[in-house]
Amino acid sequence: MRRNTLRQRLADGAPIVNGWLAIASAYSAELMGHQGFDSVTVDLQHGMIGFDAAVAMLQALSSTPAVPLARVSRCDYALVMQLLDAGAYGIICPMISTPREAREFASFCRYPPAGQRSFGPARGLLYGGADYFAHADTEVLALAMIETREAVANAAAILATEGVDGIYVGPNDLCLSFGRAPAPESADPEVARVIGDLAAAAGRAGKMAGIFCSSGEAARDRLAEGFHMVTPGNDAALLARAGRAAIAAARGTAPGAPASRSGY
Amino acid sequence: MRRNTLRQRLADGAPIVNGWLAIASAYSAELMGHQGFDSVTVDLQHGMIGFDAAVAMLQALSSTPAVPLARVSRCDYALVMQLLDAGAYGIICPMISTPREAREFASFCRYPPAGQRSFGPARGLLYGGADYFAHADTEVLALAMIETREAVANAAAILATEGVDGIYVGPNDLCLSFGRAPAPESADPEVARVIGDLAAAAGRAGKMAGIFCSSGEAARDRLAEGFHMVTPGNDAALLARAGRAAIAAARGTAPGAPASRSGY
Amino acid sequence: MRRNTLRQRLADGAPIVNGWLAIASAYSAELMGHQGFDSVTVDLQHGMIGFDAAVAMLQALSSTPAVPLARVSRCDYALVMQLLDAGAYGIICPMISTPREAREFASFCRYPPAGQRSFGPARGLLYGGADYFAHADTEVLALAMIETREAVANAAAILATEGVDGIYVGPNDLCLSFGRAPAPESADPEVARVIGDLAAAAGRAGKMAGIFCSSGEAARDRLAEGFHMVTPGNDAALLARAGRAAIAAARGTAPGAPASRSGY
Amino acid sequence: MRRNTLRQRLADGAPIVNGWLAIASAYSAELMGHQGFDSVTVDLQHGMIGFDAAVAMLQALSSTPAVPLARVSRCDYALVMQLLDAGAYGIICPMISTPREAREFASFCRYPPAGQRSFGPARGLLYGGADYFAHADTEVLALAMIETREAVANAAAILATEGVDGIYVGPNDLCLSFGRAPAPESADPEVARVIGDLAAAAGRAGKMAGIFCSSGEAARDRLAEGFHMVTPGNDAALLARAGRAAIAAARGTAPGAPASRSGY
Amino acid sequence: MRRNTLRQRLADGAPIVNGWLAIASAYSAELMGHQGFDSVTVDLQHGMIGFDAAVAMLQALSSTPAVPLARVSRCDYALVMQLLDAGAYGIICPMISTPREAREFASFCRYPPAGQRSFGPARGLLYGGADYFAHADTEVLALAMIETREAVANAAAILATEGVDGIYVGPNDLCLSFGRAPAPESADPEVARVIGDLAAAAGRAGKMAGIFCSSGEAARDRLAEGFHMVTPGNDAALLARAGRAAIAAARGTAPGAPASRSGY
Amino acid sequence: MRRNTLRQRLADGAPIVNGWLAIASAYSAELMGHQGFDSVTVDLQHGMIGFDAAVAMLQALSSTPAVPLARVSRCDYALVMQLLDAGAYGIICPMISTPREAREFASFCRYPPAGQRSFGPARGLLYGGADYFAHADTEVLALAMIETREAVANAAAILATEGVDGIYVGPNDLCLSFGRAPAPESADPEVARVIGDLAAAAGRAGKMAGIFCSSGEAARDRLAEGFHMVTPGNDAALLARAGRAAIAAARGTAPGAPASRSGY
Repeated sequence: MRRNTLRQRLADGAPIVNGWLAIASAYSAELMGHQGFDSVTVDLQHGMIGFDAAVAMLQALSSTPAVPLARVSRCDYALVMQLLDAGAYGIICPMISTPREAREFASFCRYPPAGQRSFGPARGLLYGGADYFAHADTEVLALAMIETREAVANAAAILATEGVDGIYVGPNDLCLSFGRAPAPESADPEVARVIGDLAAAAGRAGKMAGIFCSSGEAARDRLAEGFHMVTPGNDAALLARAGRAAIAAARGTAPGAPASRSGY
Repeated sequence: MRRNTLRQRLADGAPIVNGWLAIASAYSAELMGHQGFDSVTVDLQHGMIGFDAAVAMLQALSSTPAVPLARVSRCDYALVMQLLDAGAYGIICPMISTPREAREFASFCRYPPAGQRSFGPARGLLYGGADYFAHADTEVLALAMIETREAVANAAAILATEGVDGIYVGPNDLCLSFGRAPAPESADPEVARVIGDLAAAAGRAGKMAGIFCSSGEAARDRLAEGFHMVTPGNDAALLARAGRAAIAAARGTAPGAPASRSGY
Repeated sequence: MRRNTLRQRLADGAPIVNGWLAIASAYSAELMGHQGFDSVTVDLQHGMIGFDAAVAMLQALSSTPAVPLARVSRCDYALVMQLLDAGAYGIICPMISTPREAREFASFCRYPPAGQRSFGPARGLLYGGADYFAHADTEVLALAMIETREAVANAAAILATEGVDGIYVGPNDLCLSFGRAPAPESADPEVARVIGDLAAAAGRAGKMAGIFCSSGEAARDRLAEGFHMVTPGNDAALLARAGRAAIAAARGTAPGAPASRSGY
Repeated sequence: MRRNTLRQRLADGAPIVNGWLAIASAYSAELMGHQGFDSVTVDLQHGMIGFDAAVAMLQALSSTPAVPLARVSRCDYALVMQLLDAGAYGIICPMISTPREAREFASFCRYPPAGQRSFGPARGLLYGGADYFAHADTEVLALAMIETREAVANAAAILATEGVDGIYVGPNDLCLSFGRAPAPESADPEVARVIGDLAAAAGRAGKMAGIFCSSGEAARDRLAEGFHMVTPGNDAALLARAGRAAIAAARGTAPGAPASRSGY
Repeated sequence: MRRNTLRQRLADGAPIVNGWLAIASAYSAELMGHQGFDSVTVDLQHGMIGFDAAVAMLQALSSTPAVPLARVSRCDYALVMQLLDAGAYGIICPMISTPREAREFASFCRYPPAGQRSFGPARGLLYGGADYFAHADTEVLALAMIETREAVANAAAILATEGVDGIYVGPNDLCLSFGRAPAPESADPEVARVIGDLAAAAGRAGKMAGIFCSSGEAARDRLAEGFHMVTPGNDAALLARAGRAAIAAARGTAPGAPASRSGY
Repeated sequence: MRRNTLRQRLADGAPIVNGWLAIASAYSAELMGHQGFDSVTVDLQHGMIGFDAAVAMLQALSSTPAVPLARVSRCDYALVMQLLDAGAYGIICPMISTPREAREFASFCRYPPAGQRSFGPARGLLYGGADYFAHADTEVLALAMIETREAVANAAAILATEGVDGIYVGPNDLCLSFGRAPAPESADPEVARVIGDLAAAAGRAGKMAGIFCSSGEAARDRLAEGFHMVTPGNDAALLARAGRAAIAAARGTAPGAPASRSGY
């Protein structure tokens, strides 16, 4: 079976820079996969992407060096398995707030006896190889999103859950859960401290700590803070920002902010 | 943020005529959005429409004056949020029969602290504007479908649920729940009375009462009965009926009924 | 091979009422095919339909009693054959103005030695049957659109062209070619006379005369005028009109006209 | 309503050979439907198929003699109904392990009062006929997958569940649940005995027993063992195997096995 | 009919900054349309975009302030008209090298008597308004690509062609035609001079001069050189470059170049 | 740039076994690409595949060892280039019957000065590498289909055409052109001789000779006859035949022939 290179990078202490796809296009997926990301995540939660589109994107990622991951829209038994069958080498699952949820999520990613994944690897065989079943439990990553106050309180237990390979911080929802405005890199001291603590906790547990960031610069800061896997914005934000910058350069003006509509 | 004009119409006592889409096509969605409907609903429950198709339809509706709504296939945390992120300005949710279900549904439509919607507004920003997050909780409509005997019994409590903006009656399923044949405008006295009572209850609660109808004429009667929002059939029925009428006119015959197959 | 029932209707003097699809949806295609049309045409010229969508629509029509036809976007060798391979039982080809163009078009619809269609019947085998090749030349209809002044002058020769099964009048473009405003049922005497003459010419030639109409009533008039095949509007117009009528009925107003934008 | 011919075959003791679709293509669905299968199942669990693709495939199957079935990804209220509305004449539901789950699943497939299916038959009307509602509960099949040790223990009770028309054995997951390597025709004596017992139990209950097989030959053995419905591999496996055989014949070599990647 | 704001900008001497789409996605189209571009072009020549995808993209652009344009894959009668019917407000046509080709191209964009566009405006009515036909010839832009040595020689005559609204320089193909390596901003003196001359010639003719550029900075230079319409790269290049920059910032390295494969 | 391994195989005298795709699915494309074919061809002529679908299939093939090729629907300037831009490493072009057509076809596949391909390599860069432009003319294959009596007469001249890398025999159309029934392996002595002569002529010219076959066994015979590249049937035929064989094995009957419909 094709190795999941993210595991080796984690073992080597090498940072993982992860791309993030909200645009339902196999071509933009393939483009992103060729830019140098260690992994690229197809986002079925906040991306404009359903299962039919996700399969095409995972196929496109398969011809790139990037490890294909997917974020599910919820901790759903069927969706997790469908995306693994479609060739995802790891699942990022939102809103894991308790050890019970963490165990359930992990069980969806592993075949019995370790878990309850149903057999039928489909594209897993094409991307992973004919010996997929023998090694899938070892290669596939299960990353639990920490994005509530309750999850923070349970972080150690979640990290200790067998089959959970790491955590992935959703900073916007975490801010909301702490009563703050959503911000990928909130200046709020409590939120900032909590996020730092999560990286440290993952380090202590010998597991992966990932986080969504608003830019490459912010991602660099998160790596310095102890995170192993950073996502420097999604494709939609990268494209929009690059478009505005190009327009500004062409017009000789400062890059515009997206205007607010007149309703308010 | 772009205003949800349905709220103003409700405040003004202006009736809302709502289009309904079962055909998975962005072009027919756009066509419908330009005909004068106040809102148009993408139906992911009984329509032949999955998420990938729904996004394209919501995009098409965005260039029309009609407010884009969506009916979800069930009260699912993930699906409600995905459709809001995709730009729906309101969710119609089937089978809300208890105050607990109503609260849960409403919570999926609102950001914390009011609810538990996850942050990532995607197309919401494009359709709504850059200040989407600040106003989304106010603009987005949560309409609970009343379509069981239990829901009727709980109607007042459902209407009193914070965050529920109104009810939407599913007359076919309501008939079934009362042991009657499904009919949008059932002649059954009990069902007829119950539906009238629902409009009145919504009026008392200062919330919106919507209902699915089989035709424009039936919709007019429902408005007279006190409903604020009426759906005069879906696109599939409108198209089929218009097709049969055109054929009949061409042939000089009476419009045909869809023939029954010979199996029975 | 499955018979092309349009031929029998023509032989019987039975009118052909034809549906017309501009919406790229297999579901609306299937709906239309079940309403009683003798044939339904997938329009790749002015419809919002490319080849990938057309195949799905022809598949959907295959489960209905309607004979599946396609209008190509131009007299293109490849496109005509692709649509026949995809199961169309007849091709309506725009802008046939000379006998040479007519011969060329007909040759695209027939296998050698009668024509130059390339072998590879694909869905033709599924819809038509395993003996498709033996009978396709006989069953498939080639209908040449008459829509220019030049075509009118050449109508007799076009109708006399071997392999051309009939003509199909495009009244809007015909009006334009005669310097009149486009109108399906133009009141202009010259255009009206020309169109009537075309039906008569086809009758004399023993071939089919079809025409696009704006409504069922107009279609009835065309049948009375001698046309054999009439199209009472397309799906988009039927749906839009039905939508406006339903809204008007719901609001208790007269059906609206689509408003003109303020640019002019 | 069009009859579900599978019921008659079961009554006649005629075997049911079922096709299985993992490739998201309406054309390959239609091809399979024309090869002689009694039914063809669209697999939304391990197939690379979301709802939007499934609808197109069910449409394509509608023009073939094969009865259209669907396997859902999980026992989900909404998905079961959506697929029935999309014209499936039967649902195969994974992971039914208890009578409670069996009752719930069956209730999703029937209208009240027998079940809780929501009204809105959509394509059901097109494929089944205008009297769909009157007969759907009788025609639609609900097949519960037996694929866990718990399900085996509960098999008699599951088979006795009103509304459950039969069982469908998932041999790979069953192997896993018994601690064996997944294999469609496991040589493990306990698994082999359990599977044989399931066929016998279904026979005693007067209900259908189906099973997934790895080949036509294996399917024949299962029929001999007492199964009524057999699936001789899915489209992906048939195509891959046929491709390898053709290559081997062309090269004059033995058919290759899919190579294992070098990671392990 | 909705005005084509590009005409006003040209009349006002205001520069036109044009976006360019090679990614077949309605969501990325919509994103680009909201960033401040005066127009956005769907590229059916070198973009990964067929007609079915292009329609969805033009629909998405319709809800943005950007004027929707399309580049056709060749000067094809049918394709030009299909894209205008799909709502494009202008066509950029490759490889116009002679006045005859220019006349032909222009004729495809105009209704008779000015041209030979076939009637059937479809989405034109939805985006443009009900009076589309009356004004389409005035609003729709026909931009001829100058990208061969022959075209350069004929530039004045092409610019003088009635119905041609301007030229659009394809610098890469122009380089190739002059025997130079393709480069959007070639340092080759002859090519550079030729391009400058083209802007001047358009200015003298009172017509629009557009050009493809590799970046916002290069676009600014082209505006200074006399071009009216500049395209600062396409979406694929913007996204890829933004991705590489984000990765570099995250890793603290210099942005990478796309690596060359080892074949050579 | 990634090497086109077909060239090396030709130089080595190693046979090329080519897969053929008529099913518009990226998953079946990927499956086929993993079975051991040296190349796989996406068929846009007789396959049910438009450009949008073809791109997804070429992407899927990119993750397999098979060289991605495409057959165009006709010798169209735009379509040839679009498919090369989409990553095809070779084009098979139908109906090349004269040296002039051969030159034209070859010119579409090469950049100036060798040909007239327009610059914009898109997916070519992703599949081929960043140095695509420097080597594309060398790597990309142009294969001219010989399938008319005229082409046979001109075979030597076509093979001598600079830029034409070989011929590909279409035996069905060739039969038709010789007045015989279409058959991949016609027993007609003249056709059989002509096909053998074509292989020999290609050998003498040092160019590739390919041919479509009905099975692996027939392909083996063609290799023995001197052909270098053989296609043992397409995916649709492989799947249909495998399906019928599986059904027959399950039923214990002889494999069925597709039944002829009762129309004739």
